[in-house]
Amino acid sequence: MPADEPEPVQGDSARPGRADLVIDNISRLVTLARGAAAGAEGPLGVITHAALAARAGRIIWCGPAADLSAAVSAESARHMDAGGHAVIPGFVDSHTHFVFAGDRAEEFQLRHAGVSYEELARQGRGILSTVRATRAAAPEALRASGAARLRSFAAHGTTTVEGKTGYGLDHASESTCLDVMADLANDPDLPAVVPTFLGAHTVPPELRDTPGGRAKYVDRVCDEMLPAFAGRARFCDVFCERTAFTVDETRRILERATDLGYLLKIHANQLSASGGAAIAAELGAVSADHLDFASDTDLVALEAAGVVATLLPGCSFALSTPYPSGRRIVDAGLRIGLATDFNPGTSYSENMQIMIALAVSAMGLTLDEALRAATLGGAAALRLEEEVGSLEPGKRCDLAMLSVPDERELAYHFGVNLVDRTVFRGREVAANSTSR
Amino acid sequence: MPADEPEPVQGDSARPGRADLVIDNISRLVTLARGAAAGAEGPLGVITHAALAARAGRIIWCGPAADLSAAVSAESARHMDAGGHAVIPGFVDSHTHFVFAGDRAEEFQLRHAGVSYEELARQGRGILSTVRATRAAAPEALRASGAARLRSFAAHGTTTVEGKTGYGLDHASESTCLDVMADLANDPDLPAVVPTFLGAHTVPPELRDTPGGRAKYVDRVCDEMLPAFAGRARFCDVFCERTAFTVDETRRILERATDLGYLLKIHANQLSASGGAAIAAELGAVSADHLDFASDTDLVALEAAGVVATLLPGCSFALSTPYPSGRRIVDAGLRIGLATDFNPGTSYSENMQIMIALAVSAMGLTLDEALRAATLGGAAALRLEEEVGSLEPGKRCDLAMLSVPDERELAYHFGVNLVDRTVFRGREVAANSTSR
Repeated sequence: MPADEPEPVQGDSARPGRADLVIDNISRLVTLARGAAAGAEGPLGVITHAALAARAGRIIWCGPAADLSAAVSAESARHMDAGGHAVIPGFVDSHTHFVFAGDRAEEFQLRHAGVSYEELARQGRGILSTVRATRAAAPEALRASGAARLRSFAAHGTTTVEGKTGYGLDHASESTCLDVMADLANDPDLPAVVPTFLGAHTVPPELRDTPGGRAKYVDRVCDEMLPAFAGRARFCDVFCERTAFTVDETRRILERATDLGYLLKIHANQLSASGGAAIAAELGAVSADHLDFASDTDLVALEAAGVVATLLPGCSFALSTPYPSGRRIVDAGLRIGLATDFNPGTSYSENMQIMIALAVSAMGLTLDEALRAATLGGAAALRLEEEVGSLEPGKRCDLAMLSVPDERELAYHFGVNLVDRTVFRGREVAANSTSR
Repeated sequence: MPADEPEPVQGDSARPGRADLVIDNISRLVTLARGAAAGAEGPLGVITHAALAARAGRIIWCGPAADLSAAVSAESARHMDAGGHAVIPGFVDSHTHFVFAGDRAEEFQLRHAGVSYEELARQGRGILSTVRATRAAAPEALRASGAARLRSFAAHGTTTVEGKTGYGLDHASESTCLDVMADLANDPDLPAVVPTFLGAHTVPPELRDTPGGRAKYVDRVCDEMLPAFAGRARFCDVFCERTAFTVDETRRILERATDLGYLLKIHANQLSASGGAAIAAELGAVSADHLDFASDTDLVALEAAGVVATLLPGCSFALSTPYPSGRRIVDAGLRIGLATDFNPGTSYSENMQIMIALAVSAMGLTLDEALRAATLGGAAALRLEEEVGSLEPGKRCDLAMLSVPDERELAYHFGVNLVDRTVFRGREVAANSTSR
């Protein structure tokens, strides 16, 4: 069932029992609940003067604060005071590359100072510098930098983070990156981590100039890595682009992945009309990401196949390229996700709030659309819409408590962190003391 | 003497004496010093492995950490450890409207959802809603919200904030806003405040539809307010635009202001070729701000007159309008400032770091240019380049300690706060516990 469609909600109709956490004094609770939760209004299902109750990390009740005591037994619950501020679902960042070593700040500045791609490549910069650094890094170092980044995601309100491999590009290094993510996923103080295998990110350096090297790498992905990593990554993703992998290579890899039980994602039509969108529709990918160069035909096919379109405005920001129209994709009827694409080359930001602001400023979305895409849309892009992305009974108690009374300050009040506290599975995992 | 031109620096050549503050363990000290400070390299005068010493709120020495003990007597100094991170001059935000009451988040969201200006005006939204709220607000409320905003500016690394009146639009309310700024300027825990009188922001509502009302308001500005406020505001500013004040009205107001000792600023050519840039050059304004519609002739005139061009990318962000080319203005030889334009209608952000990122992403500047514009350029736009904007002996000890070792992470790592601690006149005034 699509995440955005109405479904009856338990709400306060049944007595949900004993709570171990109660959050009250919420000016506006943005539920995004499917269907008519008690008192919820507008497209985002906002309950004013609200409270929320949870037990064992799951929401058991949301509603008007005045109804709390009749609905929930809260005697032994821990109480959190939202301070008269708004509460929103935790952001679900469905597209990141947060496991890597090295730094590319200087490359970024040189690029914006007009140094050509050729010159940067000659200097050994670009994605292959990240591959070198990641291969050379100790697993503990990758784990430490990954954990630090996840804490920063959380400090900005994100409670679920998809993470891709793709800077290892050999069996051992890709496996290490999956191990690091599995390890981080077990840390209760960090956001949830959803691992994706992106061995087909680019052809590794040692095989680029070898005759048959490229085909050999696709063989390795299909015959060695995919079988070995089955069950360790939820998704398989391919960068389908003229500079990366062809449509035929993409199809081969993703068909093999499907046979092995992976769900599919595609980096599609970011830099050109690569055919990635069409194959995402053909193979029933869960999401097609980027879509800068998707045709109207592509959008019709994606919509018909129920593929979530994931918008990544951070790339346009970092590359100073035109922003694709999010409006056009929404108007074509697609469900959309919004994500950071956090990575060291083309979008170095862990803050979903600036992505919401960019989507409104530069991609033609309304705040309602952008906020939905950053939460429930991200959940759909991970096929986790029954678990996260909205505040409803049964879902994980993953939420962000803002420092302001109205969620409509998002996008408007831009470039600052409006999240005061982040709650993950009913536990506070990140608190910010900074004044906005 | 222009702020960007070389001038001999005291550096470590003379023994500067006893320090009461020493900051060491600085990976990169971005001095922006004019001329060859000891060990300073590149266009931003970066000293690696550096230290800085201050006395009574002023810098007395900057240089390689190894030279500190020979250069400065630091026995009784307070020590701050920069943690191996970069230190930059505090941002000088030379264009803001931070004193106001009311909220326009809903207007922003409606505008981006396609509601027309006419409809928003019919609903009583827009600048006049801020004027109504500001006039109705108690001075204590304006002071409290102004102080909270200044703390947020400081938390993002800003140490000097220009603030304009212009939401009072009558003698009493404009005077109150100047009083509020004077009060805030005396608070040692807040950034420095530089007040600007912008009575000519728009024609007040009560005079808009009265015959002769507009002329009457210009008379009041010239004959009542300007004389009464002389000495209480450093600058007089006029919004020269077809929707606000004509070139002739602008000239009359600013000539009167000059006679009374004000320095001049102009909101010039933001929405159209208003003539504001030409009159800024003619009257020798310290800065001309916006300049979206400045012609090549305008730029030549501004350069010849030594007017600082202040870029305000936040407006283009908030209004979803094209960004004017900063590259073109730099290439025309003008000195540039970069500022937030913090205001409730068209740029609601107190973070200079996102303005730097926007200037690099969308206005064609390099990081060096944007960082200079955000510090020394802002100082020039306030004619305070002998006081602030760079880290050199004699200047105020106003600086931002980053949470990262390299200032080149600015713009690259966008949408997050890279400032860890802000120091103002040698005192730490803002510390952030948020992980980036």
